[in-house]
Amino acid sequence: MKDKNLGIVETKYFNFAEPPHELELESGEKLGPITVAYEAYGKLNKKRTNAVLITHAFSGDAHAAGYHKGDDKPGWWDSMIGPGKAFNTDKYYVLCANVLGGCSGTTGPSSVNPKTGKPYGLDFPLISINDMVKAQSKLIEHLEIEKLLTVAGGSMGGMQALSWLIKHPDKIKSAIIVASAIKHSPQQIAFDEVGRVSIISDPAWNGGDYYGGKTPANGLALARMVGHITYMSDRSMMEKFGRRIRDVGERHKFNTGFEIENYLHYRGSNFVKRFDANSYLYITKAIDCYDASEGKNLSELLYGTKAKVMVLAFKSDWLYPKYQSKEIVKACKVAGIDTTFCEIESTYGHDAFLLEIDEETQLIKHFLEKVVQAG
Amino acid sequence: MKDKNLGIVETKYFNFAEPPHELELESGEKLGPITVAYEAYGKLNKKRTNAVLITHAFSGDAHAAGYHKGDDKPGWWDSMIGPGKAFNTDKYYVLCANVLGGCSGTTGPSSVNPKTGKPYGLDFPLISINDMVKAQSKLIEHLEIEKLLTVAGGSMGGMQALSWLIKHPDKIKSAIIVASAIKHSPQQIAFDEVGRVSIISDPAWNGGDYYGGKTPANGLALARMVGHITYMSDRSMMEKFGRRIRDVGERHKFNTGFEIENYLHYRGSNFVKRFDANSYLYITKAIDCYDASEGKNLSELLYGTKAKVMVLAFKSDWLYPKYQSKEIVKACKVAGIDTTFCEIESTYGHDAFLLEIDEETQLIKHFLEKVVQAG
Repeated sequence: MKDKNLGIVETKYFNFAEPPHELELESGEKLGPITVAYEAYGKLNKKRTNAVLITHAFSGDAHAAGYHKGDDKPGWWDSMIGPGKAFNTDKYYVLCANVLGGCSGTTGPSSVNPKTGKPYGLDFPLISINDMVKAQSKLIEHLEIEKLLTVAGGSMGGMQALSWLIKHPDKIKSAIIVASAIKHSPQQIAFDEVGRVSIISDPAWNGGDYYGGKTPANGLALARMVGHITYMSDRSMMEKFGRRIRDVGERHKFNTGFEIENYLHYRGSNFVKRFDANSYLYITKAIDCYDASEGKNLSELLYGTKAKVMVLAFKSDWLYPKYQSKEIVKACKVAGIDTTFCEIESTYGHDAFLLEIDEETQLIKHFLEKVVQAG
Repeated sequence: MKDKNLGIVETKYFNFAEPPHELELESGEKLGPITVAYEAYGKLNKKRTNAVLITHAFSGDAHAAGYHKGDDKPGWWDSMIGPGKAFNTDKYYVLCANVLGGCSGTTGPSSVNPKTGKPYGLDFPLISINDMVKAQSKLIEHLEIEKLLTVAGGSMGGMQALSWLIKHPDKIKSAIIVASAIKHSPQQIAFDEVGRVSIISDPAWNGGDYYGGKTPANGLALARMVGHITYMSDRSMMEKFGRRIRDVGERHKFNTGFEIENYLHYRGSNFVKRFDANSYLYITKAIDCYDASEGKNLSELLYGTKAKVMVLAFKSDWLYPKYQSKEIVKACKVAGIDTTFCEIESTYGHDAFLLEIDEETQLIKHFLEKVVQAG
């Protein structure tokens, strides 16, 4: 159904925090100038009330839907964004921005530090989920949108939606939080730390100073391999790969040739082509340190919030298990927020938020209609 | 209750496959001479009918119980082996041997290759779970034990017990298979492959040729960090560490100081002191390639087996989930084997087989009494 797609789209760039007006980060450090890479699909209505912000997961980017010129593959949530889709571009003006600290157009550790004329590397300041959202809010201001119809995202994108709900409750009418958490559990932190150590142990990482030379490709690929295990479920791996062996030439004496091994290597080496190792470090640190409740009771931070909330979880998601979604739901309900929760039956694990399109579409469509109707 | 312990124990060594009588491996390759490091606790009775073989997990060794002279810590299953314990050394003669391919006294890749006078490294042949068991069976023959009362082990130890049941059914009266599987799932293989790639990506690994020089400590430690995540459960990590931060000095800019991170680093660097990276590669490959059913229906391989079987699983064990234990149980029952199964409530994850001592003790004690009574 190509005709139901957005066709060719382009990434745009918004610059702010130009000297001397730097952005103050949550840590107190200052950063500027900042570029935010973003894409926009559909049309902003005259009242500027139909804008939807999609917040991406850890390794996502601004290219959420449609095709970049010459590309075979569409944006990462194309099945959800477009004419007649969940985020219906016939009705809504859909935005997605690459996060601060990222490596797909928005200012991050691989960007040039104006003070040195060289990439920041580890001179880039530590950033937080709230900082990412602060940068997004500058974009929304720039677009003269007073209130977003919704902020929607999965995984780290859900944390950003939660941050919008807590830090900018008057600027959103609703939030859709998919397969996410108030804060990372020690198990989630542990997997991230393994990824970080994998990168840092790669001699090519070189203290973060590798731009223009050999990159820590081995470490970054290994980090991604671990990630992909956590994105799938035991069952989805069994269904997709079983113990099938496919000879792709002996990678090393101990590689058993199982398809699951080939898959992980393939995903690892593909990731290296599009992602920056330092961004991996900065962003996972931001996720691990995020605690929406700020050490308090989350519901206290949410009292008085008018926005509606939808929370979605997936049955086989063991990286962001259902109990974490239910903690969000509980805090919202205790705060008196109009909150709806749905657990979607799925065997896909955490990846389900990218794959369980039919149910997600129905749930999100109806939710957004309700938000629009409430005015 | 020091008086209920075994006190000081010593590792013994059994040599076999002396030239020209090499051991034929499952692959067809030959290996010899072979040393098997083992320990023995309790006394063999006159009829030689009270011998129990404990088979160790992936990173275990022959030192299952008691104290080595000067050590503060006892063997890895000391809580289960000793006077009055599950494997009651007042009644049973308990043996445990380091596996073939290991690095704690039994011949493995770090052993000297008699043909070159240098450590084998990658010249060591690939070995299998059945090969490990074949080496154990030589030790049992040497000790003039015709029939073992039981073979008992957890995780990879359970695979060895299963191998005894299939390959040497007439040499055992029973098998106790704890937290194990007929074969690894793709998820289990995936985690092992991550560990292998971690080691192989460490430049110090040097194609397996690092003995006497710098060892691939970073890669091996990282592999172990991943392992430890899979040995615990989400809940046990939450209970043990939560999101507590303990400042141990900044390890790297992106280390968040969470206790779970410190714990993983500690376990990783400790492991490096006692384990050989090449053994890690050979043994995980043996585990991943093991398929007790040999691509058939396991019950067909078990028909006619007289040995009794006990299978134990742990509720929170997501690395070797209950369904894998139940597959073993089903195959045994279909084959007409007297089989008992118990799922133990535990929050400890896969580590539970080392920690849930009380229930394991009761279950194993009663099972062994039944085996003895059956004669």
